[in-house]
Amino acid sequence: MSPLRDLRDRIDEVNEQILDLLSARGEIVLEIARDKGVRGLDGYDPSREERMLAELTSDLRGPFAAAQIRDVFRTIFRISLELQDVEHQAGLHVRRRDLVPEGGILVGAVPVGGPEPVLFAGPCSVETPEQMDAVGAYLAAMPGLVVLRAGAFKPRTNPASFQGLREKGLRILKDTADRHGLATVTEVLDVATLPIVAEHTDMLQIGARNMYNTELLKAVSRLDKPVLLKRGFMATIQEWLLSAEYILSGGNESVVLCERGIRTFEPSTRNTFDVAAIPLMKGETSLPVIADVSHALGRKDLLLPCSRAALAAGADGLMIETHPTPDQALSDGFQQLDLSDFGELVQQLGWSVGDAGTGGRFPAEPLVRAGRKLS
Amino acid sequence: MSPLRDLRDRIDEVNEQILDLLSARGEIVLEIARDKGVRGLDGYDPSREERMLAELTSDLRGPFAAAQIRDVFRTIFRISLELQDVEHQAGLHVRRRDLVPEGGILVGAVPVGGPEPVLFAGPCSVETPEQMDAVGAYLAAMPGLVVLRAGAFKPRTNPASFQGLREKGLRILKDTADRHGLATVTEVLDVATLPIVAEHTDMLQIGARNMYNTELLKAVSRLDKPVLLKRGFMATIQEWLLSAEYILSGGNESVVLCERGIRTFEPSTRNTFDVAAIPLMKGETSLPVIADVSHALGRKDLLLPCSRAALAAGADGLMIETHPTPDQALSDGFQQLDLSDFGELVQQLGWSVGDAGTGGRFPAEPLVRAGRKLS
Amino acid sequence: MSPLRDLRDRIDEVNEQILDLLSARGEIVLEIARDKGVRGLDGYDPSREERMLAELTSDLRGPFAAAQIRDVFRTIFRISLELQDVEHQAGLHVRRRDLVPEGGILVGAVPVGGPEPVLFAGPCSVETPEQMDAVGAYLAAMPGLVVLRAGAFKPRTNPASFQGLREKGLRILKDTADRHGLATVTEVLDVATLPIVAEHTDMLQIGARNMYNTELLKAVSRLDKPVLLKRGFMATIQEWLLSAEYILSGGNESVVLCERGIRTFEPSTRNTFDVAAIPLMKGETSLPVIADVSHALGRKDLLLPCSRAALAAGADGLMIETHPTPDQALSDGFQQLDLSDFGELVQQLGWSVGDAGTGGRFPAEPLVRAGRKLS
Amino acid sequence: MSPLRDLRDRIDEVNEQILDLLSARGEIVLEIARDKGVRGLDGYDPSREERMLAELTSDLRGPFAAAQIRDVFRTIFRISLELQDVEHQAGLHVRRRDLVPEGGILVGAVPVGGPEPVLFAGPCSVETPEQMDAVGAYLAAMPGLVVLRAGAFKPRTNPASFQGLREKGLRILKDTADRHGLATVTEVLDVATLPIVAEHTDMLQIGARNMYNTELLKAVSRLDKPVLLKRGFMATIQEWLLSAEYILSGGNESVVLCERGIRTFEPSTRNTFDVAAIPLMKGETSLPVIADVSHALGRKDLLLPCSRAALAAGADGLMIETHPTPDQALSDGFQQLDLSDFGELVQQLGWSVGDAGTGGRFPAEPLVRAGRKLS
Repeated sequence: MSPLRDLRDRIDEVNEQILDLLSARGEIVLEIARDKGVRGLDGYDPSREERMLAELTSDLRGPFAAAQIRDVFRTIFRISLELQDVEHQAGLHVRRRDLVPEGGILVGAVPVGGPEPVLFAGPCSVETPEQMDAVGAYLAAMPGLVVLRAGAFKPRTNPASFQGLREKGLRILKDTADRHGLATVTEVLDVATLPIVAEHTDMLQIGARNMYNTELLKAVSRLDKPVLLKRGFMATIQEWLLSAEYILSGGNESVVLCERGIRTFEPSTRNTFDVAAIPLMKGETSLPVIADVSHALGRKDLLLPCSRAALAAGADGLMIETHPTPDQALSDGFQQLDLSDFGELVQQLGWSVGDAGTGGRFPAEPLVRAGRKLS
Repeated sequence: MSPLRDLRDRIDEVNEQILDLLSARGEIVLEIARDKGVRGLDGYDPSREERMLAELTSDLRGPFAAAQIRDVFRTIFRISLELQDVEHQAGLHVRRRDLVPEGGILVGAVPVGGPEPVLFAGPCSVETPEQMDAVGAYLAAMPGLVVLRAGAFKPRTNPASFQGLREKGLRILKDTADRHGLATVTEVLDVATLPIVAEHTDMLQIGARNMYNTELLKAVSRLDKPVLLKRGFMATIQEWLLSAEYILSGGNESVVLCERGIRTFEPSTRNTFDVAAIPLMKGETSLPVIADVSHALGRKDLLLPCSRAALAAGADGLMIETHPTPDQALSDGFQQLDLSDFGELVQQLGWSVGDAGTGGRFPAEPLVRAGRKLS
Repeated sequence: MSPLRDLRDRIDEVNEQILDLLSARGEIVLEIARDKGVRGLDGYDPSREERMLAELTSDLRGPFAAAQIRDVFRTIFRISLELQDVEHQAGLHVRRRDLVPEGGILVGAVPVGGPEPVLFAGPCSVETPEQMDAVGAYLAAMPGLVVLRAGAFKPRTNPASFQGLREKGLRILKDTADRHGLATVTEVLDVATLPIVAEHTDMLQIGARNMYNTELLKAVSRLDKPVLLKRGFMATIQEWLLSAEYILSGGNESVVLCERGIRTFEPSTRNTFDVAAIPLMKGETSLPVIADVSHALGRKDLLLPCSRAALAAGADGLMIETHPTPDQALSDGFQQLDLSDFGELVQQLGWSVGDAGTGGRFPAEPLVRAGRKLS
Repeated sequence: MSPLRDLRDRIDEVNEQILDLLSARGEIVLEIARDKGVRGLDGYDPSREERMLAELTSDLRGPFAAAQIRDVFRTIFRISLELQDVEHQAGLHVRRRDLVPEGGILVGAVPVGGPEPVLFAGPCSVETPEQMDAVGAYLAAMPGLVVLRAGAFKPRTNPASFQGLREKGLRILKDTADRHGLATVTEVLDVATLPIVAEHTDMLQIGARNMYNTELLKAVSRLDKPVLLKRGFMATIQEWLLSAEYILSGGNESVVLCERGIRTFEPSTRNTFDVAAIPLMKGETSLPVIADVSHALGRKDLLLPCSRAALAAGADGLMIETHPTPDQALSDGFQQLDLSDFGELVQQLGWSVGDAGTGGRFPAEPLVRAGRKLS
């Protein structure tokens, strides 16, 4: 036997011994999970991991350096944590496969994550009762599952940009929804305004800029109201999952995820629509996932193909911005469809628009802008 | 009338005058394009633009700074160039709407860009005649449009990684294709090996790493052979278009584009699959666009939903890696499907696999590896 | 004269006319700014811009398309806004050149943005009185300008990670500072906890995850306390400036900016340290800019060269994490220096460490961890 | 003893056993490296790794899944490979600490990587003998270490952009260098033109777009001429290292690395200057590293602070573009300094400009452009 062959055989042998020890270690880890009798991350103790690493590397005699030994054991710690998760005895709430009730998460009366995809539609911002009424009437006439979306509190980059009608906008949104029997979603920006927002809508939206706002996540986790959690435009899949975990672990299990594009070097689209995030998240969790194609792309000409792509990839719904008169919109006019183009788009996607397509309800020029803050 | 109202009216007036001048300027630009009687970019003269800017900013009396005036005129130059393009009297070849012949670009006998999507399938690398025969037999038994793909020259990051069988690999590829009546595509890495590669394949692939390799682009532009141009993983849409322009403007109009993912901060997938690039490119050019979902994702579990997304977004075809025994593959084994999983995937995508699914042609253990370079 | 020459002369003529109109328009814009008699962004009216665009493109007779005309006028609007800014009659507060008082912004008694660079140092998290005392004693013995940093409220990605000692941590921080006569900075996470945090520290830190948290920005803008505004790890320079504008325009002008790395594709460092952001920001605003090299890099071996680079690029200070026993740290142990390495680093950077280098104050093993939440 | 404490003790015990096995395995790995008696990557066999993984996961009895076991062993394989490297018995050439001869790598008579930093300066493109003479005369009068850089073959994104004077440009470059006694570097674009380029210059530049062009890397590896290897603008540190490895492992050890910015989401600079890459690379390899601040930033106002940052971070030199009349440059005029600004910059960096600063050699208007290709 050649020396090389011999040495390789010895390595194979050591490999097998390491494998056996890993398996034994895995069994103990499972036993600990059972022993603690816990569900959730109570079993996870980062400081113990660090202490184990410190101990293991305190007196190394080579040939490996401490950093290398740490790498191996960090991998072992990670798969151990995964193991607890797999066994349903510990791990993240977000990994549970039973999060969504039969038929879907109810937003008002609209089930999200059930067999039928849901359309979240409406203007970027609440601007006037007339504007909202035009959209509301249009959406109410559609036979499919629809949730009215519109922002009252707007997180704008520039403090001089239109910041939303705030409380007044919430009232207009709720009035519109009540009049037309629509479910609603609107964004909440902070803990201080959470009560008033929650009072006026069926679903709370955590926007991309707030995905890391852990204090806000904890606050909505204590409410009994569905949450639409947008992916931060700089957030990894893992970070997005952990933001959902903040909400779930606080007690609120009605979370819908929303991919809305990530920031990359490509300037042709406002963001890069990460379509793979949809099946990725549906593999990582049982929560419903929708796609906000309007924000992901920032241009109207790509809405149809990318909406089709989102649904083909398994999205439970779409978010699309529509405004009676996009040219006069107070924010993001360039990416909002007028109602006629919107109707055409959703028909091409296979939704029926019912009587909505006939339009006519929204007067051509009545969008009275006088008296509004910014004009 | 308030002074503010008055001043604003004067601005409106100036705006109208600028608009009129822009229109007049546009008419002259069109006249120049006609006068020069040219097609293509001969009419584009960057140095003249710079001279105009220098002149305009040489003697400014304010209130704007030179950089600001340059910004405005650069925008004007750009829309002027676009104008020439729109009129088909000048501009990029890649913008022409008549690039693809009726029925599609022929790769061997397979029309790409016609009504039916095309499947580009095969292993990452040519390894052995037996391996290629197994894949070839499988693909040949499928009723749809199929092109066999496999690399003989491999552009590897690490010089110690398997670099491909090179000339020997080309011969195996061609033998396999001849035996099974398949069209083929394989990558060409440089000008020196272009003749030998071109001799052995129906279509030349320019890989992502070579999208900016202008000398290679110019060389393939002089051949009468279809080219599959992959998007660089760091390339903008505009740069990708201009790489295609290199090939078209050199005389070769048989170009198929291939989106294969871009590099971002997200670690869950090998690259981020930019599904919007498909409709974007189909808007910018009339060339066919396919999606290499294997490289875009780098994991098998997302192939089905993302392939569906690509087709829904308008892709003219898909590229999917398949290998008889992925675990033994010499490169990228982790992202290659075995033939059975591959057959299942394409069936779920709606392709018929005909007799291919029966398999049985590929022997279980005959992949004789002895004597090969790296084992 | 050739027709081409003639046509080009006509274009030159039109260019000159457009230039004259632009100058005239610029003068009116300045007059409006003066007429409104305003300072700040009150003069900026996005909806008026949209109305102008709508009007200009409502009745186009060609040859340009509406989108092209919009592009030109958007550029014109932008340089007009810049013009107002340049003239100091309108524009962003953040552009003012007189923001920093003679000698710098005072954090406690430490001037930031004055002639001498400031060292913001301390552990990632407040953990125990003993840990803080060890750091505090070390820093207090250094002769240079030092601010003690340590987190009491920690914005952690994972809800199961250590979230900070919160109120208890604030008290330990303040006690340590009082005992050693140090100025402090600590992070504030939301509006609800802002009062308690503000009460315990000399400077409020807005972390990278909260740079877009406009409600929090507005809240700190109403306080009379310096703010350390970190750049979001996916924030453009422009967005960062506008976040500072939120604070300044609300009335708080004591803002220090902190570059801390951006998220890119490169995995070798935790983030990519954007050293050019330092001179960029110092060109865009007169606010002080420091660099958090610990978070930018996430590894200790690059701290010295990158700290040198930051200072060479003009940084007004550095933030460096140090911990008496990094191996036992409850968060980010891998990137925190122990006090001895820290002392060596700052000496190599040219700071004097005075008596601090003698150490000895921090007991070797007394970090009693019993009873703490997570161990 | 509580059951939890007991279970944890058992885990600690297993950890110790795994650690012992890792150490034993490491010793065998070192023995193999010695046994093979090889230097370089001959000892690296990816297919053997795959076979080991296949074997280890072929018959798992739980509780871990195959993918988890693979993760652990892939980490073990990686640290084993690192181990061989550390021991200098195997591993990458690029890791050797003895690559640079005493005093530095000679480019002509200029030592790069020695005690004194080197300035690589000159225009983006060779345009005319007069232009080059003006730059050459200026640089030759400087007392420090200078290499003249200028492109004859230009890799342009747009096929209609100026592609360089090619062979004619090479002759002008060489004439200029001969007349003024300067060392030169110029870019080579492909294997076909490599001989002619190599004949006319002291150092070959591999540009960012060609960093992945393995055929070109192999070709220059066979020459006895120093190579300036730029980092691809989307290349990781590891990929850049492996591109250098292509050159080194082919026999050419005179490689100088050049950081020139990476592509990110930030639009304020042309690229994001990754200053940490300088110390990172100097830690990973002993090759000299310089910084091309002109391309990294794409704007003149940041050249001084970022050049200072590069030198402070340990750069062995800088590359800065300078042109007698940037406004008339045929490429990248916006980022090239005129000779006077260039002289001022390098003086501020601490270089002496000797008689160069007096200028006067370059005539004010003689840059005869008539007859040139693009005007």
